[in-house]
Amino acid sequence: MLEALKKEVYEANMLLPEYGLVTFTWGNVSGIDRERGLFVIKPSGVEYDLLKPEDMVVVDLCGNKVEGEYNPSSDTATHVVLYNRFPKVGGIVHTHSTWATSWAQSGRGIPCYGTTHADYLYGEVPCVRNLTKEEIDEAYEKNTGTLIADEFEKRNLDYIATPAVLCKNHGPFTWGKDAMEAVHNAVVLEEVGKMAANCEMIQPKAQAAPQELQDKHYYRKHGANAYYGQINRGGV
Amino acid sequence: MLEALKKEVYEANMLLPEYGLVTFTWGNVSGIDRERGLFVIKPSGVEYDLLKPEDMVVVDLCGNKVEGEYNPSSDTATHVVLYNRFPKVGGIVHTHSTWATSWAQSGRGIPCYGTTHADYLYGEVPCVRNLTKEEIDEAYEKNTGTLIADEFEKRNLDYIATPAVLCKNHGPFTWGKDAMEAVHNAVVLEEVGKMAANCEMIQPKAQAAPQELQDKHYYRKHGANAYYGQINRGGV
Amino acid sequence: MLEALKKEVYEANMLLPEYGLVTFTWGNVSGIDRERGLFVIKPSGVEYDLLKPEDMVVVDLCGNKVEGEYNPSSDTATHVVLYNRFPKVGGIVHTHSTWATSWAQSGRGIPCYGTTHADYLYGEVPCVRNLTKEEIDEAYEKNTGTLIADEFEKRNLDYIATPAVLCKNHGPFTWGKDAMEAVHNAVVLEEVGKMAANCEMIQPKAQAAPQELQDKHYYRKHGANAYYGQINRGGV
Amino acid sequence: MLEALKKEVYEANMLLPEYGLVTFTWGNVSGIDRERGLFVIKPSGVEYDLLKPEDMVVVDLCGNKVEGEYNPSSDTATHVVLYNRFPKVGGIVHTHSTWATSWAQSGRGIPCYGTTHADYLYGEVPCVRNLTKEEIDEAYEKNTGTLIADEFEKRNLDYIATPAVLCKNHGPFTWGKDAMEAVHNAVVLEEVGKMAANCEMIQPKAQAAPQELQDKHYYRKHGANAYYGQINRGGV
Repeated sequence: MLEALKKEVYEANMLLPEYGLVTFTWGNVSGIDRERGLFVIKPSGVEYDLLKPEDMVVVDLCGNKVEGEYNPSSDTATHVVLYNRFPKVGGIVHTHSTWATSWAQSGRGIPCYGTTHADYLYGEVPCVRNLTKEEIDEAYEKNTGTLIADEFEKRNLDYIATPAVLCKNHGPFTWGKDAMEAVHNAVVLEEVGKMAANCEMIQPKAQAAPQELQDKHYYRKHGANAYYGQINRGGV
Repeated sequence: MLEALKKEVYEANMLLPEYGLVTFTWGNVSGIDRERGLFVIKPSGVEYDLLKPEDMVVVDLCGNKVEGEYNPSSDTATHVVLYNRFPKVGGIVHTHSTWATSWAQSGRGIPCYGTTHADYLYGEVPCVRNLTKEEIDEAYEKNTGTLIADEFEKRNLDYIATPAVLCKNHGPFTWGKDAMEAVHNAVVLEEVGKMAANCEMIQPKAQAAPQELQDKHYYRKHGANAYYGQINRGGV
Repeated sequence: MLEALKKEVYEANMLLPEYGLVTFTWGNVSGIDRERGLFVIKPSGVEYDLLKPEDMVVVDLCGNKVEGEYNPSSDTATHVVLYNRFPKVGGIVHTHSTWATSWAQSGRGIPCYGTTHADYLYGEVPCVRNLTKEEIDEAYEKNTGTLIADEFEKRNLDYIATPAVLCKNHGPFTWGKDAMEAVHNAVVLEEVGKMAANCEMIQPKAQAAPQELQDKHYYRKHGANAYYGQINRGGV
Repeated sequence: MLEALKKEVYEANMLLPEYGLVTFTWGNVSGIDRERGLFVIKPSGVEYDLLKPEDMVVVDLCGNKVEGEYNPSSDTATHVVLYNRFPKVGGIVHTHSTWATSWAQSGRGIPCYGTTHADYLYGEVPCVRNLTKEEIDEAYEKNTGTLIADEFEKRNLDYIATPAVLCKNHGPFTWGKDAMEAVHNAVVLEEVGKMAANCEMIQPKAQAAPQELQDKHYYRKHGANAYYGQINRGGV
């Protein structure tokens, strides 16, 4: 079942080592078929070199494995919550990529220091707090997803405009309209995290980019008035 | 039309990923035919893997598309202004390369800490201010070019001797006598930016290189008394 | 003798340059056959490009060369002590990998700033003191091993849970159930060292991850209740 | 003439881009035939991709070109002085490698923070002062060599034990018994410079390694009592 989606999610997973975002098996990508309410995710702890499209695991929105020889990613319960709480999301990525994880470990969100950031991620990339011992003991992965979604609500963030989050002392999640876009955003986040750290090293008092510049770049690429790329050109 | 220039600009664009200066489509190179008053530029948002010489777009010095199937780079209006204001420039590059962009995000120019810098870029690489909200709303890309040219005039900088600039919270532009030299300068700027940041990390009170050393290296490579390379050797 | 082990140790050694952990010959891997009380180690100072499985040297637990054309690694005496004092260890790695060595040079242990660290290395990676002049003069390599084992005892550390150490002003040793796992831990240590340094650059007051988060991740992968990977799946 | 030496020097030059020590043409290697009093050096400003063994230029110890179609490296006069003042040196390298150059730009010598450094470079790698305007105007490249040799004398440094120097606001020179060893030392210097900067970032109050540890590692590899590698094994 879901052969085309499995192939797409497999290919999206294989981009993680290609883009230098993962060491060993430290990452996972999923993609969802919203009509059927099923998503496809990487199996847990299987090496990328050995991965095949048919190894992808099918999971429903209650977190039950529907098909697959392997156990799904140990982070599956986080994906389940995010798909339920963020209904427009079509793909999710988790990595331990170097710079995004370094920011997560520091407990700080990534300020929007420039247009590279603003082109893809509206405003600061938030860093959510640690789970409490009770939350960890009760259901660690599920509560990670719940915390992310709750924080986006509480901070009044639009998860479409800001498709990335850092979990304190852990690492990043990114998402998008499908698995490929979620990987794209994971690459952007890593590069943006590296440049933000460099920027503060060069100028410890660096300020976020002016709001009008952030808006200009974000809306140059997104929404009704976008004019970047070949968006308004028929057939491309 | 302009087939040879399209090929050259295509090849110059393809050097950006080869030299590690771009992620995804975050960069563009153009080259000009001064006799005809037309320049050739990368199409907007097209992946480097898919790019072909015939995809290059021909634009005139008023910014009108003269030929091409695709929309030109979203930064085309900046190139237009720079070609008009800097009449000896034959090629222009814009990237979001890591270190040059980190300096731009910090809002600081890159001091000339050594001979690597002095060999190519005379004096500090300037960082120009943010555009105002009015300038952004009126014509963002055009006003970016105007600001750069105005600042070079105001600071009395020779754009031939200092073929690079940083736009605050955005990233670098470089230029040269043709597209290839502009790419060459983009590579130099990135390396110089990395070493300048490292230098300040090692010695927070680092000083710019003495003026006489900067002059020695710059004029060893440029001008009537240059003796670097095979300049004075007939036929090479 | 020990042809299979020689091949395994050879392959583990060849992973060091592949993972970017060594420059020139700056590293060595060994693996032990506990039943026979013999271990196999890289010859000293031989380039990786020229290395062959049959070049591996066989050494007993008193440090005597039992077989091999070459001299064993100059660090062999350290491996001897660690195999004797850490009886469950099956493989040992020494490198001068960039970030682990930078931490060793700084004299600081690597704090556990996140789950990447906690997944593999329980708690801070310790940094042991310099040897005294007397210890160096008497038996440098042997006393390096003795110091490591003594420090693990003194600090009440479980060498299975924390399979890595830094030697001040020198570099790291890692170990594991076999040579391959020891290399795996060397890769983890390098990545963890890089992210910990980045983390402190981003947030100089960074705190170690909460103990309950460290425990959650460590025990998600290790011990009776582990559920990461395909551990509970018959036949894998 | 000197075909074998030209081939060796050519190959040593080609290792610079392979080891990531040069951008474009920013480096040169030479090697000397002491019996004939002639050395072979890279031509100035020729791209590595186009370089051939027969392009190497032969120069005598007065700095006269003896054979070669091209102009020799613009730094040839520095090599001339170093060969004259350091009579046991058989090969010399100059690069603008990232970390060594960053230290040179900072004006600081590289402290010996660990055994990686001590294995190859005895004590701190010195950084020599800027040339004065008079020294630059009179004979920049020649006076660079004179300053290096004078500083080694003044500081009572053994150029065999410390085969590397930094020129302030410029970059490194390294040397060795032949061109290949000089390149080897250039690689070591770059790695040591990177780790020293990292070390200070992790621990701003880092101290140089104890003298007895530096001595142990240096003499483990050099001199009559060396036991690293296959030194005492007949035929290797």
